[in-house]
Parts: sequence; C-alpha cells; structure tokens
Amino acid sequence: MALDRLINAVKRTGNPTIVGLDPKLQYIPEFIVGKAFNDHGETLEGAAAALFEFNCRLIDALYDIVPAVKPQAAYYEMYGWPGMRALAKTIIYAKEKGMFVVTDGKRNDIGSTMEAYACAHLGKTKVGNKDYFPFGGDALTVNGYLGTDGIIPLLEVCREFDTGIFVLVKTSNPSSGDLQDRIADGQPVYRLMGDLCEQWGEKLPGKSGYSGVGAVVGATWPQQLAELRAALPNTFFLVPGYGAQGGKAKDIAGAFDKNGIGCVVNSSRGILCAWQAQGCAPQDFANAARREALRMKADLVAAIK
Amino acid sequence: MALDRLINAVKRTGNPTIVGLDPKLQYIPEFIVGKAFNDHGETLEGAAAALFEFNCRLIDALYDIVPAVKPQAAYYEMYGWPGMRALAKTIIYAKEKGMFVVTDGKRNDIGSTMEAYACAHLGKTKVGNKDYFPFGGDALTVNGYLGTDGIIPLLEVCREFDTGIFVLVKTSNPSSGDLQDRIADGQPVYRLMGDLCEQWGEKLPGKSGYSGVGAVVGATWPQQLAELRAALPNTFFLVPGYGAQGGKAKDIAGAFDKNGIGCVVNSSRGILCAWQAQGCAPQDFANAARREALRMKADLVAAIK
Repeated sequence: MALDRLINAVKRTGNPTIVGLDPKLQYIPEFIVGKAFNDHGETLEGAAAALFEFNCRLIDALYDIVPAVKPQAAYYEMYGWPGMRALAKTIIYAKEKGMFVVTDGKRNDIGSTMEAYACAHLGKTKVGNKDYFPFGGDALTVNGYLGTDGIIPLLEVCREFDTGIFVLVKTSNPSSGDLQDRIADGQPVYRLMGDLCEQWGEKLPGKSGYSGVGAVVGATWPQQLAELRAALPNTFFLVPGYGAQGGKAKDIAGAFDKNGIGCVVNSSRGILCAWQAQGCAPQDFANAARREALRMKADLVAAIK
Repeated sequence: MALDRLINAVKRTGNPTIVGLDPKLQYIPEFIVGKAFNDHGETLEGAAAALFEFNCRLIDALYDIVPAVKPQAAYYEMYGWPGMRALAKTIIYAKEKGMFVVTDGKRNDIGSTMEAYACAHLGKTKVGNKDYFPFGGDALTVNGYLGTDGIIPLLEVCREFDTGIFVLVKTSNPSSGDLQDRIADGQPVYRLMGDLCEQWGEKLPGKSGYSGVGAVVGATWPQQLAELRAALPNTFFLVPGYGAQGGKAKDIAGAFDKNGIGCVVNSSRGILCAWQAQGCAPQDFANAARREALRMKADLVAAIK
C-alpha cells in the first residue's frame, strides 16, 4: 500500500520531511531563468524549462536525505500546458531518484469525474490499445467537500496502482475555521471529515497500521493536530504550515504517534528559498536547500523525542 | 462584471443552458478519433487532438443558440499536458465564437497558492516582461472548504480581468449530504457556504443585481435550490445534474428569480452523446447536439413560465 512505502522511506532516511516543490520564478536563481529564457524566450515554455531545471537540481541535492516531495499543481498550472508538462517531468524525475511524490492538486468532483482525475494522477489513461500514466505521482491531495461518492472511485484505482490520497481535514490557513471549525452535530466539521477519512481508509488498509487515505492537517493548529492524532489512529497526516506559515517543530509534536511516526511535515519556501534567506551565492542554491533540509530534519527529530 | 456578461448572453439567446464539454474518447465518433490516431498515433497527443476537434465541431453547431460552455478540467487532465493544451485551445475557440467559458476545475488552496490558480484561470501570468493568459476562461469553479482567505485573492484578479467564480455550495452527487447537509450552528453546511458566497460577492457587485461570485447548486436537490434562491438574492447559480444525473426541468424551476433569470443549467452527456442516444449517423453528431440543445432550451423555458 502506497503510504506504507512513504512510511518506509521516512524510516530509511530518519526524516519525516516532505519538500514542497512550489517553484515561483522569483525563487529561481537568475542563471537558470536566464538560460531558460535564452533557449525558449520569455514564454510559458521558457518559464516551465526554468521550473524543471530548478526542481531537478533540488531533487539531486535532496533525494538521499529527504523521503518525499510535494509539487503544488497550481505553480505549474499558472504556466499553462508547458507548466503541466514540467509538473509531469518533475514527478518522473523525483520517482527515478527514489522519492515518494505527492501531487498537491486538492482535486474534487462527483464520482464519474473523479475517475478522470484518478486516471490523471493515481492510475493510467487508456488511449486506443495503449496505456499512459499522465502525471504518475504516488499520491494526490483531494478535497472531500462532495462526500463519499467523490472519494470511493479513487480508492479502487489506488488499490490497483499502489497509490494513495490525502484528504483536506484541517487546513493550515488563517481562515480555515470559517467552515472547518463550525460545530456540526456536536463536533467540528474537521472532525467529521477526519472520521470520514478513517471510514474511507478501511477500504485501503496498510501494513504499517496506517491506511492509504491520509489527512492534511496544518502545523498552525497544534491542538487540533494532537486531537486528530488521537482520534484517527489509522490515518497518516500530511502537515503543511511549518516555517514560512509560522508552524514550529514543537507545534507538530502531537502529530506523531508513540513510535515517532504518523506524519510527514512539508516545507516549501523554507527550502526552495534557503539560498536567498542564507544570503549565499545563487550557484549555491541547491547546497543551501540541503543545509536547510538537514536543519529542519534535526529540528523535527528533536521535537519528536 | 463577468457574470453580467453571462446573464446578457443568456438573455440574448433566450437560453439558460451551459454545455459541459466533458469529452471522453468513447463519446467521440470514430471518424474523428481514427483521424487523430492516424495523425498522432495512439498517444496522449492523439487523444487530445480528437478532443479538440470534437469540441470545435460542437461549438460550431451550438454557439448561436447556447450562451456558454463549461469544460471540465478532469477530462483534459486525464490526457496529461497534451490534454491541458486541448483545454486551453478549446477555451480560446469558444471565446472566439462569443461563448462565455466556465472552466470547471473546482480549484482550492490557501491564499498564496490560489493566487497561482488565479493567474492560470482568471487572469494573467507574467514571464519576464511578457504577459500570458494560460487558460483564459471567463470564470472558474472553486471549492470553499478552506474559507475566506482562499477566496479573497481571486476576487481582486476577477475585478481586474472581468472574470468570475462559482463556489460549490450544494453539489449534485448522491453523497453531497455527507458533509454539506450536516447542521452546523443551526443550519446546514451548504447554507453556511451560501452565506459566505453572498458575503464574498459584496466585493464584486454586478449591474444585474448578481455578483461575480456564483454558487454551484445541483438540479438533483429541487428543495434546496428554491431555498437557496430565496436566501441568496445576489448569488447567480450554476446548476449541474440536469439529464444524465436525473435532474428534470421542473426540479430547476426554483432556481430562477421572478424575472426568469438567476441560473444557468448544465448538460454534458445529454448533448455530447445526443448522436448515440438518437441513434443517428456519427457524421451527424453535431446536428444531434444542436437538436438536443434546442429541446433542452424549450424544456427549461417551459419550466420557467
């Protein structure tokens, strides 16, 4: 089961970090952007070439110490179809290096349409007599607002192709409470969504004890993280919000179980922009990312203990 | 304001229909698919070429009698980046023919990431000194589970580029009640989401009385449609679920206001597969779609009166 693979990768590296590949052009050193524009012009293709080159060099610098990456679809989609091609190529490259890839698309729709998203991101698409894996990630983030029949079609595809999903439960942003904290039938909406994750996860059990249906719970809500960890024993967490959004390692401690597993913690800007934050030479950007990833690993590991 | 343009197009054609461009390969006549495979092989590019050709011929047959189309992103994304290119080309083609285009992506994320989706679908992306409109639709469907700060960044872009959004409120699928019908603080979650639409819409007022923030409410829930129409006087509705999903014209009557406007009703399979349902020659598929669109228009207009 896919999240067992992720958990094994976390254990192998001793690092519960997932690096968010959200490559805005302004995060990318000029020597990469300039070359891409030189080759392709100031076009969407040029931007996409810069994104891909930046990602590859980051992956090269991180794959032996970080178990997983999470490309955020929006930052590729904003460069149109060339951006989506860069997303697909990035996923292939990261998987070739042995990393677990969570495509952060937060996709959602009615069941028949979710089958199409499952083809795109969790399984294959048939064209005539040939099969293609259009994006080919190991897992996809999804939004459960539409309820059970928007999720079930994914689980069958996940079982067949050894992929998984992460459902938004309690998101890291300041306004997440507008809906998620409202009390419905005696408990907050995010708890209802968490309970649905446990229920959906029964259809995709894992050897680790965690199912193939994970939950997104923000580092910015330490109390809810601990509450949800206790309430959802079979649901693995993807925790955004560390670093740039304000979440600290101690805020995340409650997301780990008694064995020190139970979640991966995302950092995007903190690692991608480490070269700017550290004030080092642009050519050193990948090393700066590695230094920050090692610092973050130590920070998290200390907080677990 | 963008939804004023949609409402004017509905009035001009006398038709509150929006055609869902959800082109599965099995909906497309063999003479189109065969030619595309002949030109490009049984590849994602070949599939995408068939999708685009099918869409263009449908748009040619419909643009003078139907005000709007709604391409569903999932059915393009399942063909990878070539599919996304077909989506972008379809949107351009429909707009050139004067149709209003709602990109059905149900995108959602935290604010900073929503800015990237806004660049992709509602505004422009800057690359060096050049501007690009990566997908360029007139409106985008979005999911409001993350709350206000996931929506606000879109509204500024909508104002600048004369585009709009439709927020999922009460979706057409059977399980929509899993979350949306739960009673939170005395009212169903879908009502809370509807109230947020009214609130967000205040930032994007329209001349028609309807704001630039619409709501998705399924034809499969006639009672909630009428309830929400009364409760949300400034929120225009996008109503999926007519036809294949079981919604009838009489079920939708409550979505219209006293002036006979207030929503557009989506049909996808009913129109795209009309040639199969009518048992006519594949070469006649576009005419079959037009006949079904005219039948649906008459069906809806009768229900309004």
